[in-house]
Amino acid sequence: MHIDILTLFPEMFHGVMESSILKKAKEKEQFSYQLVDFRNYSTHKHKKVDDYPYGGGAGMVLTPQPVFDAVEAVRKEKASQPRVVLLCPQGETYTQRKAEELAKEDHLIFICGHYEGYDERIRGHLVTDEISIGDYVLTGGELGAMVIIDSVVRLLPEALGNEESAQQDSFSTGLLEHPHYTRPSDFRGMKVPDVLLSGNHANIEAWRRKESLKRTAQRRPDLLENHELNEADKKILQEIKND
Amino acid sequence: MHIDILTLFPEMFHGVMESSILKKAKEKEQFSYQLVDFRNYSTHKHKKVDDYPYGGGAGMVLTPQPVFDAVEAVRKEKASQPRVVLLCPQGETYTQRKAEELAKEDHLIFICGHYEGYDERIRGHLVTDEISIGDYVLTGGELGAMVIIDSVVRLLPEALGNEESAQQDSFSTGLLEHPHYTRPSDFRGMKVPDVLLSGNHANIEAWRRKESLKRTAQRRPDLLENHELNEADKKILQEIKND
Repeated sequence: MHIDILTLFPEMFHGVMESSILKKAKEKEQFSYQLVDFRNYSTHKHKKVDDYPYGGGAGMVLTPQPVFDAVEAVRKEKASQPRVVLLCPQGETYTQRKAEELAKEDHLIFICGHYEGYDERIRGHLVTDEISIGDYVLTGGELGAMVIIDSVVRLLPEALGNEESAQQDSFSTGLLEHPHYTRPSDFRGMKVPDVLLSGNHANIEAWRRKESLKRTAQRRPDLLENHELNEADKKILQEIKND
Repeated sequence: MHIDILTLFPEMFHGVMESSILKKAKEKEQFSYQLVDFRNYSTHKHKKVDDYPYGGGAGMVLTPQPVFDAVEAVRKEKASQPRVVLLCPQGETYTQRKAEELAKEDHLIFICGHYEGYDERIRGHLVTDEISIGDYVLTGGELGAMVIIDSVVRLLPEALGNEESAQQDSFSTGLLEHPHYTRPSDFRGMKVPDVLLSGNHANIEAWRRKESLKRTAQRRPDLLENHELNEADKKILQEIKND
């Protein structure tokens, strides 16, 4: 997979792109990336990339020219038909399902605006996906792009080592994870539940399933609605309700 | 506001924390931050911070000792009662309302795990807020912490310059933004709607309101349900339905 990131703040990306899983995945050549400062594509004599909105109002708007030209340039380099992702609050809310979908692509382009709005022609004629990572306001699209890239690259085959992949993924199983405990069994008087020290694997599994269902029911009942429950799960949920 | 960030990957933060609004807000002394590698607080002879889970299973779990000690150390430095935020998929889903709440605090501590799970005693006895930035799986809590910090710091008084603050915030008004257009009025045959070039401000306002309602109705009907609509808005929505 190759990823092009169009941004006016390329320096924001270095720490994240060169650490941990992303760094390892790049070293193993599972993906490559390029930071593209689209200001360099502006044909304006002062390399301007934004202008006042038609119809008045406060705030600046990114002009179409530098963004169109930058996307077309990176598309030519790869001779590919990439997905072009725009980070914006108006986009579809990002989910694990979308991460799985993007992970199948060979080439992704991310467009990151930064407190300016986007000229609507970028949205209508250049991008294939408008994505919002959540219902909150960020300074720019850069953090959104990093979030998507991290979640997508970790899904690439062999991107995760054994240690990392072993961790259960909450949003892949559809339920929130059960509690975890490790050494010491007594930390300042706070103790590990007896069942986890019992060595009885059937009891441990039953406890974990119950705790996972309980936590999901308490914190994210919306996840349970979309989850297929078997008879045993339904019985456990009834018990939790009765408690 | 002071922010302490507990992480095993402090180098991930530099690009984001030293750019754009966060950089300016730090320079204007609206907030300060400290990166705390909690491995330095481990009393283990090899500075280990994780261990196998009780009850078996794959994956590693962060031990309570280094995290408790690091939180207590930064709490003492400030002699404050900070909010202690744990980034995790099991947390409450982050929203703009939560950002506004956190922006009122003097001291925040973020705990970022990284593919390991958290020992449940950290969750139960140390943290005040468990937050998830969305329903997708990330490699660690670091990007989540950056997202929250960006969204919170930009709300601090005078953190935003005029240019930035002028931009309408989708999740503050409760509706998605209307489309924006800027120069040129004709870009490769793609034209700006006539109304925006008309100079008739009443018509421009009406067009913008309608487009904002239309976009919200099409993409995020859930936002409309929680939004107080006036009679004019209801009439516009009825027109959109009829179209």
